[in-house]
Amino acid sequence: MSIFNRLESNVRGYCRSFPTTFTTAQNATLTDENGQDFIDFLAGAGTLNYGHNNSDIKDPLIEYLQRDGVLHGLDMHTDAKAQFLEAFEEHILWPLELDYKIQFTGPTGTNAVEAAFKLARKVTGRTNIVSFTNGFHGVSLGSVAATGNSHFRDAAGTPLNNVTFMPFDGYLGEDVDTLDYFERLLRDSSSGLDLPAAVVVETVQGEGGVNVASVEWLQKLEELCHEFEILLIVDDIQVGCGRTGTFFSFEEAGIVPDIVTLSKSLSAYGLPMSLVLMKSELDEWKPGEHNGTFRGNNLAFVSAKAAIDLYWQDYSMTRSVKRKGALIEKRLQEIAEDINDVELEVRGRGMIWGLACRECPELMELVSAAAFKRGLIIETSGTDSHVLKCLPPLTIDDDQLISGLETITESFAAVLNDAEAMKSLGLAHAN
Amino acid sequence: MSIFNRLESNVRGYCRSFPTTFTTAQNATLTDENGQDFIDFLAGAGTLNYGHNNSDIKDPLIEYLQRDGVLHGLDMHTDAKAQFLEAFEEHILWPLELDYKIQFTGPTGTNAVEAAFKLARKVTGRTNIVSFTNGFHGVSLGSVAATGNSHFRDAAGTPLNNVTFMPFDGYLGEDVDTLDYFERLLRDSSSGLDLPAAVVVETVQGEGGVNVASVEWLQKLEELCHEFEILLIVDDIQVGCGRTGTFFSFEEAGIVPDIVTLSKSLSAYGLPMSLVLMKSELDEWKPGEHNGTFRGNNLAFVSAKAAIDLYWQDYSMTRSVKRKGALIEKRLQEIAEDINDVELEVRGRGMIWGLACRECPELMELVSAAAFKRGLIIETSGTDSHVLKCLPPLTIDDDQLISGLETITESFAAVLNDAEAMKSLGLAHAN
Amino acid sequence: MSIFNRLESNVRGYCRSFPTTFTTAQNATLTDENGQDFIDFLAGAGTLNYGHNNSDIKDPLIEYLQRDGVLHGLDMHTDAKAQFLEAFEEHILWPLELDYKIQFTGPTGTNAVEAAFKLARKVTGRTNIVSFTNGFHGVSLGSVAATGNSHFRDAAGTPLNNVTFMPFDGYLGEDVDTLDYFERLLRDSSSGLDLPAAVVVETVQGEGGVNVASVEWLQKLEELCHEFEILLIVDDIQVGCGRTGTFFSFEEAGIVPDIVTLSKSLSAYGLPMSLVLMKSELDEWKPGEHNGTFRGNNLAFVSAKAAIDLYWQDYSMTRSVKRKGALIEKRLQEIAEDINDVELEVRGRGMIWGLACRECPELMELVSAAAFKRGLIIETSGTDSHVLKCLPPLTIDDDQLISGLETITESFAAVLNDAEAMKSLGLAHAN
Amino acid sequence: MSIFNRLESNVRGYCRSFPTTFTTAQNATLTDENGQDFIDFLAGAGTLNYGHNNSDIKDPLIEYLQRDGVLHGLDMHTDAKAQFLEAFEEHILWPLELDYKIQFTGPTGTNAVEAAFKLARKVTGRTNIVSFTNGFHGVSLGSVAATGNSHFRDAAGTPLNNVTFMPFDGYLGEDVDTLDYFERLLRDSSSGLDLPAAVVVETVQGEGGVNVASVEWLQKLEELCHEFEILLIVDDIQVGCGRTGTFFSFEEAGIVPDIVTLSKSLSAYGLPMSLVLMKSELDEWKPGEHNGTFRGNNLAFVSAKAAIDLYWQDYSMTRSVKRKGALIEKRLQEIAEDINDVELEVRGRGMIWGLACRECPELMELVSAAAFKRGLIIETSGTDSHVLKCLPPLTIDDDQLISGLETITESFAAVLNDAEAMKSLGLAHAN
Repeated sequence: MSIFNRLESNVRGYCRSFPTTFTTAQNATLTDENGQDFIDFLAGAGTLNYGHNNSDIKDPLIEYLQRDGVLHGLDMHTDAKAQFLEAFEEHILWPLELDYKIQFTGPTGTNAVEAAFKLARKVTGRTNIVSFTNGFHGVSLGSVAATGNSHFRDAAGTPLNNVTFMPFDGYLGEDVDTLDYFERLLRDSSSGLDLPAAVVVETVQGEGGVNVASVEWLQKLEELCHEFEILLIVDDIQVGCGRTGTFFSFEEAGIVPDIVTLSKSLSAYGLPMSLVLMKSELDEWKPGEHNGTFRGNNLAFVSAKAAIDLYWQDYSMTRSVKRKGALIEKRLQEIAEDINDVELEVRGRGMIWGLACRECPELMELVSAAAFKRGLIIETSGTDSHVLKCLPPLTIDDDQLISGLETITESFAAVLNDAEAMKSLGLAHAN
Repeated sequence: MSIFNRLESNVRGYCRSFPTTFTTAQNATLTDENGQDFIDFLAGAGTLNYGHNNSDIKDPLIEYLQRDGVLHGLDMHTDAKAQFLEAFEEHILWPLELDYKIQFTGPTGTNAVEAAFKLARKVTGRTNIVSFTNGFHGVSLGSVAATGNSHFRDAAGTPLNNVTFMPFDGYLGEDVDTLDYFERLLRDSSSGLDLPAAVVVETVQGEGGVNVASVEWLQKLEELCHEFEILLIVDDIQVGCGRTGTFFSFEEAGIVPDIVTLSKSLSAYGLPMSLVLMKSELDEWKPGEHNGTFRGNNLAFVSAKAAIDLYWQDYSMTRSVKRKGALIEKRLQEIAEDINDVELEVRGRGMIWGLACRECPELMELVSAAAFKRGLIIETSGTDSHVLKCLPPLTIDDDQLISGLETITESFAAVLNDAEAMKSLGLAHAN
Repeated sequence: MSIFNRLESNVRGYCRSFPTTFTTAQNATLTDENGQDFIDFLAGAGTLNYGHNNSDIKDPLIEYLQRDGVLHGLDMHTDAKAQFLEAFEEHILWPLELDYKIQFTGPTGTNAVEAAFKLARKVTGRTNIVSFTNGFHGVSLGSVAATGNSHFRDAAGTPLNNVTFMPFDGYLGEDVDTLDYFERLLRDSSSGLDLPAAVVVETVQGEGGVNVASVEWLQKLEELCHEFEILLIVDDIQVGCGRTGTFFSFEEAGIVPDIVTLSKSLSAYGLPMSLVLMKSELDEWKPGEHNGTFRGNNLAFVSAKAAIDLYWQDYSMTRSVKRKGALIEKRLQEIAEDINDVELEVRGRGMIWGLACRECPELMELVSAAAFKRGLIIETSGTDSHVLKCLPPLTIDDDQLISGLETITESFAAVLNDAEAMKSLGLAHAN
Repeated sequence: MSIFNRLESNVRGYCRSFPTTFTTAQNATLTDENGQDFIDFLAGAGTLNYGHNNSDIKDPLIEYLQRDGVLHGLDMHTDAKAQFLEAFEEHILWPLELDYKIQFTGPTGTNAVEAAFKLARKVTGRTNIVSFTNGFHGVSLGSVAATGNSHFRDAAGTPLNNVTFMPFDGYLGEDVDTLDYFERLLRDSSSGLDLPAAVVVETVQGEGGVNVASVEWLQKLEELCHEFEILLIVDDIQVGCGRTGTFFSFEEAGIVPDIVTLSKSLSAYGLPMSLVLMKSELDEWKPGEHNGTFRGNNLAFVSAKAAIDLYWQDYSMTRSVKRKGALIEKRLQEIAEDINDVELEVRGRGMIWGLACRECPELMELVSAAAFKRGLIIETSGTDSHVLKCLPPLTIDDDQLISGLETITESFAAVLNDAEAMKSLGLAHAN
């Protein structure tokens, strides 16, 4: 029995879907101990927007280590932090005229979400948070209460409270504006909806199955929040940092959230890092009220600053994402059209795309497994894993991107032509 | 205005006590941008047991980066993880005959505590957790409920529930066995104490003011837990990894917790890393039930493995900690005896020591500030910051250790001889 | 200052709308200390279905007192209880083939609701309860969590949890089947809806503004509950005991709730009494697990039995309610049609009817006040009191009923013709 | 099978201990359907301080019914309510110089407790309530959270929160002042005790096993509450209305609670009635914020007023209770002294007395059963029912009181001389 099976808890997950031991990685390529290469369409679940071990970022990291820069300093001042802050201010906040203050939380997404919820509750004096169906915001007690998936909720071991779920854009079909329901409840003082401190929303729900909120819906959501003096929190942990093309995913909608959470690709090198942005007038924190041992991960400051300098001084990254995203969308549409056995839906934005299959969710796990056999790492998401989720590094080469998409096509074909698999899925064979 | 004041949230804390910008660090020395050296008796609040940028650990880290080892892999298998697991099994678990399984959680202490609480609740089907007065376990919603300090509790923004506090060892004076009270409540089905899923305890409360639980108390606590089928969680985040001499702080008491949380010095280089140890029969997790983007911080696996190899293959570290600890205790006792203006209490174990002053808690902040002026970084802890907390790296040189202790002596003298300061403290001057 | 103003808490409510001191009452007539008679269209908010001081019930009560029957016996057996149980079994349960067991709770509606929720949670092992927008189930901590009105919710002083609100029938307009939304959430394991222990519903929401659930909606709700193994609780406290024509309000829909709560008119004489009916297989209570000092109000058993004997041995009461209800509906429709200044909606079932005005909720308080001046007691309900609620005793004479309805007409006219009132309402005068 | 077994829920309790059907009652005598008389030392668990069907109170009740006085009027003004308020003000509040306002809640104790908790939370803006070990305050969700007994707590079906338990007077033995612990937690901002809105206390814990708080302890509790601006709630539901000699049980300690709850014997005739007294400056209720259908039980106003007029215009009731109480105490002491098989403890105040047996709790159920066979109704209370609770009507004749006490003696003898019973109890026979 391997050391993993012997010693690691049953809670381990991804390693079951991708059962090999990886040793090195470069941009969109993962290599295992047998020397086999895999194209990575998982990208650390959105953590590796700039690829694995980005060469342009590696050097400053090694240099920082070599010169004994401060690695761990709690939340004390370091030159590395100063340089990150300056780059973030100059290249991210100023161009967008965003008057945000920055809080470094414990360096995981859920720590940032916990801090955001606390701040919203503290500032408003209210306890309720509105989240959306299929939303994912982490699994610590505060954030898992705002996470829709019962797989995570049931593991909490206590009732999850102080969060009310509303239907996400499109949840009730194309014809229903789900915010009408939210608005109706807000306007009715007997609706049972306690006026929330905040609404927390992902502009594209990644874990929830690549559900894309429309620009209009986001704008109306912001309006409702303003009218009822509810804080708007955009959880940009998975689809921020360029995933949709712009640095923040909400830029396209022209909205300005009161609070933003960032993590995952923020450090640009897979290093743990998180932050909370809050409108400066909301910064009612007292010193040390929310803490965390690793809230200043200096090594991550170095790589995060490098990435901002490299990619966010002009629009080239945005253009590149749009172009590659269009390429992905086109290919997925072709796959959906070519397959007659089941109905597939293509959805996404920027470089996050999903192929959804409601009528036979189990299909997607088989396709993912078939892809892995063919050298492509791609995961599923959404309720019952019914969505194949395409999330390559933004920096992937065109050749590799096309090759990966080709593998998806082949993997569908393999599953759909496998009589036994089709039988297990309860699908009539098309032929 | 500095970039920090302009852009960072008011929540920042340590940088207010130690107001300079640090640039490099080596073992127990921090150097700021002006080239001034500081002796570090804070050690990242327990994160830097092996010193800053430990030279013996630096090399494998740089090498791993240079060879493009996998930095971020979610919870997929990597060679770095395998090597850490092997080292941990061989040098930590086997010698102690501990049958634990390992869960890598999000790489912060609070993530580990959240996972531990979930598991305890899940396994027992109960919701209540017993924590202790002055305990600190983190500030995300699940863990802050078990944290005693109202500074953190009040910031939660919702009532904190499903935790009951019991008095820690010594809380009611030397003559009272506080576990008698806990036992009385457990034996009385009408006491109002809901049978807990788990008890969570620090063997030495670091943030709580360096309160040391006796061996007998810990043993009786384990017995009570066994009798009532309550899981015993030792939160060894701050005083594990050698701080008390042995790798785990509970070894001296000869107890075997059902669940252990580790973080802070686990990575040995200031890199974020956490884990939960659970008796193998408790591993009822379903795959992926508790997740987290950075739950496999491979760079930290590399440094953590290196530290185990370096320090935990024999008893030299244990002996060194005992020797230096005795040196600290002796010097602090002398300080306490020499000072007549206020009563000081010395307490600690291994290399975590506190000088407590109940009658004038404000004194300690002034001493800490005076020390900083003299080139020593040392923080306060406990209710109203009434404890000066001495937490140098375990690897500190004897010369530097003695020098730092000398600075404490001088700092006390400076404050106690400052007429204005004494007046502000409401203390009559001794002279 | 009157003794009431001087000594009673500000919490008093109805006495502000109907500011006089009442001394005697008979059927639908209340008489005050000045000898003025009032027609009672409030009927104790549904408690006096059989009128005030029903002569046929008074005699057995006085006789019971005179013979020193047991008044208070906790939940010990008494002959009064036995006779009530026998009558309830023979005339209520058997004809409907209902296999229910009976629990006497503390003699208020909210005590019954609390017991019902406990039982549902206990039996299913789940904590969540689904309630509906505008629902009212009481104001103790368990039941107020299921009550929609923020007036009551905000007074709780703690967050209200473990209840999820769904839209009631018609809440989103005539075209939307609100159960589709509930069903969508139930079928989606990532919706954020924790599988509830029970759904609690009023077939007609009295306090919520006389919102009537359709037969089809109730049937579909029962089906959903069955499919997902959720217990269906009908809170029949306000509209049970004949208010809709049949003894239980759900008979018309042909559904069989798992749990039913009854109170208000159950004692038939204004005496406090409540009970919970549960399908016999759900009776998992342990002895004494839910208690209450007044859970056997023997005097109420005497009157409740008398009412069953008097009114529920045949269909005459049902026929009478249908006939009078039709009379009320017709008259209210005429009022709505005759008024052009505002749009009025008529809704109801049996002998509970409402005139709703969404565009100008304040109108209804004025009409209620004008009615009081004219000798009619009638209250408002619903969000912002926008519904005039017509709730006469079922036993009211036709003459008095017609006279009361005539007073409503006059009161509308008085308000609508009062230029000052119309101005304060922001309504353009029709003339 | 009897109608009770067939139709009533398993939750029924007292009828299992006293298995007969009662038909009439007079003062301290209950008579069953076979004509057997029982002496009542249970008194409706404290509801019948003035005896069953008190002749002097019966007449006004019948008269009120005969003249069609308003029975049910929600919280509208009635002459019956005015007369009760006037009597309560003149004979109860004024002589004690108590500046209280009165709130009529739903007519059960738990409704009053729920209202008291809400008000305390509302006024202070805090959520936590401190209750005491072995306390009983009702079983609806808000009040059961403050009830210590796991028999009731476990039935709630959700975690019970926002209440912290402190040790009651004497809980940790005679030598420990339990308020020292409470004080220590209050003075320590890191103790984990959230500053409570209120402390709720019974001066004598009835259900908890007749635990008597000393005058000094109550005074110190009041002082602590004042210092920390915590509201003091005395729950006088079971031991108010004369049970300890004075009308309120706290008079002897000379304290003035901020809030008082009354119920049980308040109506004086076994009729459901409850109220909350609050210092007038705390009356921050908004109209109708806490409601309840039966919050003005007019029939109970009539009997409650009659009892005040009869018993509380002078000190004769107080003297009588003291005298009879001394008689009970003396006899119970003799019983305790005469019995050698087990150690018995006598405790109580006024006319509530307990005989406690910690080493063999099961003994008391057997004694209670033996007493029933001999014509005495007496219940057990406390953890594991280890206390025989002596609670006769205050109005009991001396002869009947002595006869009842004699039956207790006989019942002990019967059990202790029953070899089989002693064996089942695990007690060595004394002979």
